Amino acid sequence: MKLASLDNGTRDGRLFVVACDLSRAVPAAGIADTMQQALDDWDGVAPRLQVLSDALNAGSVSDAILFDPARALAPLPRAWQWLDGSAFHAHGELMAKVFGISNPQSDRPLMYQGMSHRFIPATAPVPLPTEADGIDFEGEFAVITDDVPLGTDAATARGHVKLLLLVNDWSLRATGRAEMATGFGWVQAKPACSAAPVAVTPDELGDAWEDGRVHLDLLVDWNGKRFGAANGGAMGFCFGELIAHAARTRDLCAGTIIGSGTVSNENYREIGSSCIAERRGIELLDEGAARTGFMHFGDRVRMEALNDGVSLFGAIDQQVVKAGG
Amino acid sequence: MKLASLDNGTRDGRLFVVACDLSRAVPAAGIADTMQQALDDWDGVAPRLQVLSDALNAGSVSDAILFDPARALAPLPRAWQWLDGSAFHAHGELMAKVFGISNPQSDRPLMYQGMSHRFIPATAPVPLPTEADGIDFEGEFAVITDDVPLGTDAATARGHVKLLLLVNDWSLRATGRAEMATGFGWVQAKPACSAAPVAVTPDELGDAWEDGRVHLDLLVDWNGKRFGAANGGAMGFCFGELIAHAARTRDLCAGTIIGSGTVSNENYREIGSSCIAERRGIELLDEGAARTGFMHFGDRVRMEALNDGVSLFGAIDQQVVKAGG
Repeated sequence: MKLASLDNGTRDGRLFVVACDLSRAVPAAGIADTMQQALDDWDGVAPRLQVLSDALNAGSVSDAILFDPARALAPLPRAWQWLDGSAFHAHGELMAKVFGISNPQSDRPLMYQGMSHRFIPATAPVPLPTEADGIDFEGEFAVITDDVPLGTDAATARGHVKLLLLVNDWSLRATGRAEMATGFGWVQAKPACSAAPVAVTPDELGDAWEDGRVHLDLLVDWNGKRFGAANGGAMGFCFGELIAHAARTRDLCAGTIIGSGTVSNENYREIGSSCIAERRGIELLDEGAARTGFMHFGDRVRMEALNDGVSLFGAIDQQVVKAGG
Repeated sequence: MKLASLDNGTRDGRLFVVACDLSRAVPAAGIADTMQQALDDWDGVAPRLQVLSDALNAGSVSDAILFDPARALAPLPRAWQWLDGSAFHAHGELMAKVFGISNPQSDRPLMYQGMSHRFIPATAPVPLPTEADGIDFEGEFAVITDDVPLGTDAATARGHVKLLLLVNDWSLRATGRAEMATGFGWVQAKPACSAAPVAVTPDELGDAWEDGRVHLDLLVDWNGKRFGAANGGAMGFCFGELIAHAARTRDLCAGTIIGSGTVSNENYREIGSSCIAERRGIELLDEGAARTGFMHFGDRVRMEALNDGVSLFGAIDQQVVKAGG
């Protein structure tokens, strides 16, 4: 099942069920008005959405419309909680080498809490204050949970994954390193994230959802040129472990989004990276200096994941622009 | 004007206007159902709430009820964003000495994003998994903003302070230090915060609200014994500066809560501290070892601020308990 929140002038948008091939969509009228409503009562709502989805995919829904990704907000336009991990060891080990520090934490996941009151739609411009901040993208997979009680273990946690997302965790590298040094984590360095237009239930992935990981390539294009195609199956900690880590001292509310961190594989020299910082790190190690600069206003980034040749989440495809410009 | 969210079985509670002496309350019926609704349209709603407040304080409201703090949720029971500063230099400098590090960042505020999908009511038990985590309280003042555009400067930001709060930022010290070392900030070390039952508009403070600071003592009692009485006027960065810091690369949504960090004064040896970690730091410096242990299950903490002898926010007064116990 695939779901989207289409713009109706409200902050939360209106919940639609989207066809598997992303061609058409139908409002979830009478089932749930918004994505958050659906998540708040997922066990009651999901079976009814599934019936509608089956009918839509069978072509037997009369009030379907063409699905226009440009009308889509983020699937969950605002969330009560966004906890982003850094679960790909290839990335963590590389960045530790670059910073000249020991890999800070290998026995448990790295995780920070980020801005969640607005996720940027997949095709909307991304307003940022200055190029001097070192504008970078970070391609990630993410999950949305229902209510997760405090103390839930990793095996149980995996059952709380209700939806999967494709996220671009925008990062400002020049301020990010200074913020890391404080130990307080990032505020200025992590503005709003973007999300691909469609959220999908795990069963949509078939065999590509296994061991709490998304075993698909995350295709990243920067200004029309392939930049990376790292596979999500290489996560060191699976999403169940990330959820359990977050829930050790707090409950998680329905609609909590948990991110994988930058998707990264050990053969990054061949398949590329999901963020510029990683490429710069490779250059620094291999060539003694980072050659690749960060993004300029007007630059475009595209992210997508294909499942059996079909776009799973739809594409993020958007431009960075000067805020207030 | 004083406002509270009384428990009506929903996550957001029902918005009430509370008398200045906290004796009575009246539902904001027909004006705003919830605190978030009021904040979303503050300029339109606040004048009408003020009229109701004036009538309540004049004794001319017929449907007023006795105000029972035990029925109050947190004033904003869940928030889209909680950004907590560390704005008291006395505390920052002491903790840096204790950790043997240089004061990490003195030219701009320290800030992290914390859990905001649930604030614990002032008199509810506080469930935590284990005493081994090093359970500590942190007494803080906080503000709630309306919508703050990206790039708002500190002087303008002060005008976005709509309400003031008293917050206990529960902290788990044993995990906190390990999380700080990662640079990612705190997730497990910062479970849900508690809040005093009443939010107040800045004018309620009279002269005690000046320069974007709360010039009142934060009275902290641990198991019935005075632990600290530090004054909020000593903030190194004012709330306007904290808001501007947060808004440099993001907009803030209405209902964003910004915390001061542990209230702390340079004469902490005389007036005490707002958290155990600070007292332990003083002991370590003065006596070579921390004597004071962290909290045990069953311990009680009380926090309050008096303005001309009247409880400004009502009191936080609650017990730590074992989660699931």
